Amino acid sequence: MSDAALPATVADVPTPCLLVDIDKVKRNCQRMTDTARNMGVQLRPHVKTHKTIEGADICTAGTRRKIVVSTLNEAEFFAANGYDDILYGFPISKEKIPRCQRLANQLSEFHILYDSAEAMQWVQDAPLNPGKQWSVILKIDTGYGRAGVVWDSDDVITVAKAAVDTDNVRFHGIYTHCGSSYDCTGVEELKTFGTTNTDRLITVRDKLKSAGIACETVGTGSTPSCSKPADNMAALTEFHPGNYIFYDYEHVRIGACTLDDVAVRVATRVISHKPSKKQLVTNSGFTSMSQDGLKQVGDEFCVIQDHPNLRLVEMSQEHGKIRPATGDIDFTDYPLGSLLFLYPYHACSTAYNHPFYYVHSGEKIVGVWRPTRGW
Amino acid sequence: MSDAALPATVADVPTPCLLVDIDKVKRNCQRMTDTARNMGVQLRPHVKTHKTIEGADICTAGTRRKIVVSTLNEAEFFAANGYDDILYGFPISKEKIPRCQRLANQLSEFHILYDSAEAMQWVQDAPLNPGKQWSVILKIDTGYGRAGVVWDSDDVITVAKAAVDTDNVRFHGIYTHCGSSYDCTGVEELKTFGTTNTDRLITVRDKLKSAGIACETVGTGSTPSCSKPADNMAALTEFHPGNYIFYDYEHVRIGACTLDDVAVRVATRVISHKPSKKQLVTNSGFTSMSQDGLKQVGDEFCVIQDHPNLRLVEMSQEHGKIRPATGDIDFTDYPLGSLLFLYPYHACSTAYNHPFYYVHSGEKIVGVWRPTRGW
Repeated sequence: MSDAALPATVADVPTPCLLVDIDKVKRNCQRMTDTARNMGVQLRPHVKTHKTIEGADICTAGTRRKIVVSTLNEAEFFAANGYDDILYGFPISKEKIPRCQRLANQLSEFHILYDSAEAMQWVQDAPLNPGKQWSVILKIDTGYGRAGVVWDSDDVITVAKAAVDTDNVRFHGIYTHCGSSYDCTGVEELKTFGTTNTDRLITVRDKLKSAGIACETVGTGSTPSCSKPADNMAALTEFHPGNYIFYDYEHVRIGACTLDDVAVRVATRVISHKPSKKQLVTNSGFTSMSQDGLKQVGDEFCVIQDHPNLRLVEMSQEHGKIRPATGDIDFTDYPLGSLLFLYPYHACSTAYNHPFYYVHSGEKIVGVWRPTRGW
Repeated sequence: MSDAALPATVADVPTPCLLVDIDKVKRNCQRMTDTARNMGVQLRPHVKTHKTIEGADICTAGTRRKIVVSTLNEAEFFAANGYDDILYGFPISKEKIPRCQRLANQLSEFHILYDSAEAMQWVQDAPLNPGKQWSVILKIDTGYGRAGVVWDSDDVITVAKAAVDTDNVRFHGIYTHCGSSYDCTGVEELKTFGTTNTDRLITVRDKLKSAGIACETVGTGSTPSCSKPADNMAALTEFHPGNYIFYDYEHVRIGACTLDDVAVRVATRVISHKPSKKQLVTNSGFTSMSQDGLKQVGDEFCVIQDHPNLRLVEMSQEHGKIRPATGDIDFTDYPLGSLLFLYPYHACSTAYNHPFYYVHSGEKIVGVWRPTRGW
């Protein structure tokens, strides 16, 4: 931004840049808050999509309590800004123990995720201040197939027990990231998926209960499943979605939101015409858009606002190539300097690429959010 | 990095992180310097891959003169650090004129790229300090099909003449980014491609000369073509490659370098085991690796050092899934915490994702480079 004054309106922004529609953000956040409240479930928003204090303040309704982070950098950034009750939502590894130790001592509540008995040895070897205990949550794999103890394996008991049997540890509960919700299309599929996912997590909870191990937290989270929750998700204690603050074109395709809900766009300008290829060249390269979605859905990976026949067909570092899906393009409709607005496929990847976001209400630029970054 | 002290060795780095092998960097830079010198061509390195003062100091052999940048943020960052003779290697757009004006006034040499007669109106309307003229270079499209005036079109004369006829402008020459070199495989293809590309640029130069327009600069640049230059490239005045400082797996596949030349790796650790899927989970998500290459070459988009049978098959924001290409995996070979080193597909995309790079000589960490960022 080079210390320049804030642009007055969306039409004045330097490009490329990320635009955040604050009214949509507030509406998305209110809706998720209402959904969780109506189901009697605690909302613990994930902050990895936006990584900003301003965004998290809206997601937590100003309480600055109960968030999930994806990196220790985020944990430290939010803790330094008065946040507490933070869940480090990534399986703990030994190298991260010293930084977690500092956070656990500093905060009133800091929770770590684990999925191996071995991890309990690491925390046992890292005592906390007097009166403090490590709060650990067992990561369960309910079918996504990434990290986590597989929900119907016997390891569930063994690994939970490893925590219960460790002196300076409080076993806090279980959590699954139901990432397979991203393979769903439509509300019915999302609800069917959510039902199965919840059943599996409840099965784990009950199995642990039978073994004498209580779960204070039984949490799940993905924006698709929490946006269109199955009824039985009311049996959980926490929802951990994050992307819903912005949404994106992927969530539109899934059916978790409408395009009108998507609160982020990349603003770009036409910088060159290439009639021989029916092509506009823009400054929306992969550094501003990210390449997320290209592999999944090809040149339909983003939506160009108000221009349904245009496609961003290729990106290099700072250039984008835009061509019509069918027919010709009238270049007089797109003079050099024309502003275009692109709804990204994956808000998390796109936002990650931007050092700051311009926040607007209607056409007026009302502020700048600066995300944290790193690990 | 959280203000932590520098790790002592590569084995101690927090993960994920980007590692830069300083000895390979120096070797790569020396080789490109020698190539250009042997051909009698001025090397004007592009800095967009690394975006660091330290990297550019090596590329320019400490002269801090003659670089190409991809964004005005880079131009301002390097200018603020004593760099001069900077080419803003992206077609000028009207919105960028005020910042370019400041740079043109501040530096002894600042060149802009343009590809439309209209752009000359913008610079005409933006006078420089007394004694200063805009230095403009005409972008030529020799077949890549992105921005630039198509080499064999009559527009070449018209658009060059627009500069010559503009009072406060000095027409400095022509430039093409020969990005199609990335479609080549092997040295012979690269040389054949380089020959054709150069022939086209020389044709433009001669056509302009016949029209009474002299080109002080006749430049081309892409790391593949400059790494394995065609003989006739000696007829050019400038080479503008950038990626060669690091190279990457894409350049290995193209045949522009060997894997031993690749100076950047992402360090990651095993954070979970999933025997049911023969899968290691690592902390090399798309935020540390980028998704570049996934669309192009699928799960062979990166090389896992010393483990030729392992593939990074999938990434989410902070997780990577690694599986064997064939056969089984012995998890005792990869205990939790094991370090793995990934050669990225595209160093520009991967480096862009990192707030800093750890620089090492052999196994010893010797420094940190902090890239600039933004537009």
